Amino acid sequence: MAQQDDNLLKKIIAHAKEYGFVFPSSEIYDGLAAAYDYGQNGVELRNNIKSFWWKAMVQMNENIVGLDASIFMHPTTWKASGHVDAFNDPMIDNKDSKKRYRADVLLEEHIAKIEAKIDKEVDKAAKRFGDAFDKDQYLATNGRVLDYQKQIDDINARMKAALESEKLNDLKALIEELGIADPVSGSKKWTDVRQFNLMFSTELGSLADGASKIYLRPETAQGIFVNFLNVQKTGRMKIPFGIAQIGKAFRNEIIARQFIFRMREFEQMEMQFFVKPGDEMQWYEHWKETRIKWHKILGLGEDNYRFHDHLNLAHYANAACDIEFNFPMGFKELEGIHSRTDFDLKAHEEHSGKKLQFFDPQENKSYVPYVIETSIGLDRMFLAVLTAAYKEETLEDGSERTVLKIPAALAPYKVAVLPLLKKDGLPEKGREIMDSLKFDFNCQYDEKDAIGKRYRRQDAIGTPYCITIDHQTLEDNTVTLRHRDTSEQERIKVSELTGRVSELVSITSLLKQL
Amino acid sequence: MAQQDDNLLKKIIAHAKEYGFVFPSSEIYDGLAAAYDYGQNGVELRNNIKSFWWKAMVQMNENIVGLDASIFMHPTTWKASGHVDAFNDPMIDNKDSKKRYRADVLLEEHIAKIEAKIDKEVDKAAKRFGDAFDKDQYLATNGRVLDYQKQIDDINARMKAALESEKLNDLKALIEELGIADPVSGSKKWTDVRQFNLMFSTELGSLADGASKIYLRPETAQGIFVNFLNVQKTGRMKIPFGIAQIGKAFRNEIIARQFIFRMREFEQMEMQFFVKPGDEMQWYEHWKETRIKWHKILGLGEDNYRFHDHLNLAHYANAACDIEFNFPMGFKELEGIHSRTDFDLKAHEEHSGKKLQFFDPQENKSYVPYVIETSIGLDRMFLAVLTAAYKEETLEDGSERTVLKIPAALAPYKVAVLPLLKKDGLPEKGREIMDSLKFDFNCQYDEKDAIGKRYRRQDAIGTPYCITIDHQTLEDNTVTLRHRDTSEQERIKVSELTGRVSELVSITSLLKQL
Repeated sequence: MAQQDDNLLKKIIAHAKEYGFVFPSSEIYDGLAAAYDYGQNGVELRNNIKSFWWKAMVQMNENIVGLDASIFMHPTTWKASGHVDAFNDPMIDNKDSKKRYRADVLLEEHIAKIEAKIDKEVDKAAKRFGDAFDKDQYLATNGRVLDYQKQIDDINARMKAALESEKLNDLKALIEELGIADPVSGSKKWTDVRQFNLMFSTELGSLADGASKIYLRPETAQGIFVNFLNVQKTGRMKIPFGIAQIGKAFRNEIIARQFIFRMREFEQMEMQFFVKPGDEMQWYEHWKETRIKWHKILGLGEDNYRFHDHLNLAHYANAACDIEFNFPMGFKELEGIHSRTDFDLKAHEEHSGKKLQFFDPQENKSYVPYVIETSIGLDRMFLAVLTAAYKEETLEDGSERTVLKIPAALAPYKVAVLPLLKKDGLPEKGREIMDSLKFDFNCQYDEKDAIGKRYRRQDAIGTPYCITIDHQTLEDNTVTLRHRDTSEQERIKVSELTGRVSELVSITSLLKQL
Repeated sequence: MAQQDDNLLKKIIAHAKEYGFVFPSSEIYDGLAAAYDYGQNGVELRNNIKSFWWKAMVQMNENIVGLDASIFMHPTTWKASGHVDAFNDPMIDNKDSKKRYRADVLLEEHIAKIEAKIDKEVDKAAKRFGDAFDKDQYLATNGRVLDYQKQIDDINARMKAALESEKLNDLKALIEELGIADPVSGSKKWTDVRQFNLMFSTELGSLADGASKIYLRPETAQGIFVNFLNVQKTGRMKIPFGIAQIGKAFRNEIIARQFIFRMREFEQMEMQFFVKPGDEMQWYEHWKETRIKWHKILGLGEDNYRFHDHLNLAHYANAACDIEFNFPMGFKELEGIHSRTDFDLKAHEEHSGKKLQFFDPQENKSYVPYVIETSIGLDRMFLAVLTAAYKEETLEDGSERTVLKIPAALAPYKVAVLPLLKKDGLPEKGREIMDSLKFDFNCQYDEKDAIGKRYRRQDAIGTPYCITIDHQTLEDNTVTLRHRDTSEQERIKVSELTGRVSELVSITSLLKQL
């Protein structure tokens, strides 16, 4: 199972590069670790995801408005939010290689090696016993396996204790005791474990004395909180109301990996919903329902989602869950829904000395609102779409195709206009149709190569509809409309194309299902 | 004249804040210098500008595709582009205040003071001579004025010579000779002048030895150049073709000012168009025409634009001009159109060791393409729109209004739905109409306060159309459609609303004029 999924991720990465969705960043310079650029088709898919989210949030809800705060913020923001003091990873350096690692990740990799040994024992036993092999029983009774499992449990327990008590050098002791070596150099000489802040910092502007250290925001949420009163007052908003924002955030992850799932530069789509204290649980449930519905109407497969409740709550939350998606790496966080209480607004009140309260005319008093946050990673959503969309199929005529079954409303191109032949006036007719569609839809025109090859190209980039112009078109002004997912073709009047395509591909059609 | 314009900028800044277009960033912490956040109406205007640019570039041109490269790039990119070595400002520190200044700006401010003296002389003379005053003659003959003018010319000449020869301490000598004092402390003790690189740097990831210094991109263009071959090959693009991108860029400007005109974090909309060497001048002219047309169909006023040809060309260019807009500060750069030759691609070939060439089947040879760039600042475009849109008017009934005559296709909200009274079933009818429009347009619903006051609110945020529901609506299913710019009202059937509004406000209508 794990093997199969690794293959799927590899295939998606290769396909995304070959078809202009995602390129390794600065590839001509052999890339920049864990950074990616979105190519000509990727950027359209991203824009369409953003548009669907934005319209579903802002356009469809009178009590939700947008915001676009800058990446640079006053540094006290991050003192108030807790990021300066507590947004850390435990790091350890190898003294010989000078490479830096996350201490907990070194231990997790050690655990993975022990797990691999268990798998090996299982494989051997399975071969030995054949059909009679009972894996669960074997795992529960085999002495060598039980011994390995105990080692794993011990490491996990000691690691957890060290992290919770912040006795970081207990991690170092554990690493040394287990004889863990630097994967690069093989050296076992380690420094002490230190906390490493995940925020990127830089120097701003005009002071010569270095007092202007600022950070690249590690989350977009704080841009909303510091603007809470500005938006509320100038927009005449009444509780409950929300502020939505799409923007870049940056985290200096030491272990950034799994393609675009965890990058150091990434984009968030966040909405902070301000409610009356005491009402937060009702709204938390409301947003859980609303967000899972948004996902499901895209048709990526209902079984690909699950809720995961947080058992260990962050210091600011009184309830939190993830919407997990079935990525090639397994179920992982796609979106978070958090009841953040009044933690952030109160912290900004304390650090700024400004009141961040709402006067509630019904209650006839002012209060600091509670906040429900919905926060989704745009890059993860992009990967979720590709994961569900990527299919290798054998068609009825026996030929193979790789197709991206991207939801039509999100597809980079909505239609491809394809004259069957490059003669007899078919290209001219094709151009005419193209000109009538291009104002409303992102269209491709392609007259090169055999029609089957052209269909394969459109399948590979996820174009949901192909319009083919043939000799009959010249006679009765009809074309064939080919459906990507079924390969079915319907005959349709040219005059009805805009209306029909619009119905099939518009984000508006999705919004009406919300 | 200058006085009047200063007032206009101040009014725009105040209006933009009061009506949720632009807030000072991190305002609760007393702001972050030269950083701004776009509020609930600003973000919609920004998104609409982006959408109009993107559709005009990408959707309407088969040979232009998009890209979204990351802000973090491999540091060698900026060595190749020349930014590491040559993207500098000459800085000088005051020894007492520790404040840092651009040496050339200190001199320009000194010049401005001399100019103010000339203005004062002119004003005095104008008063003295009354109607008989001939300003040109006075400037050409008055001894004191001529003396001031000579001082200015001398400073300009010596400053230019020092910058061109890079003899930076000639600037210091000039500052000391003129007795220029620190505007903050009044101190005249200055350090030497040093070059200060305008790129923001930060430290990336996992190396402990500090070898991973990276930059925040100072321009988006290089993300396009390093991806040139990836896009060309995977998109099967043929010369001539273009790559368009919208994204943030960062420059550590010491003097960042004039509201959102010059910020340290800003957003660019850039398109790099790759052409056959030798064809570049023809394409340069093509893009000058195409871009000015894009601006003019927005209707911000044809007289508000002018071309400014660069006389001193950058090292990479063989032709360059700006489209200048008549901002409150006068005509200033809004967009640049540059013939960048093959400078960038060749530099990346040299630094990466990779070929960045196009095989031209017609020529039967490979070459490094030449590049025409169109580069527009999104924030400047935003300010241009506000500048042209901001009007204070006296209406026919003698009442005053402040109205933003934003082009309808760019306006944050397209329509406001306003029941005349909060009774008699009018709100219910209003809701019904709102529900029929909200999928297609960003709409506001407002039933609070007298109708005139509600019109004023919509005027202030630039909503082009107000739909008023009155008692007649309940009888014949018609409403009034009020036009923001003329205050005219037309009676229209509810069933025709969607079609009519769509015609009036859609970006598609603009695209058809291109």
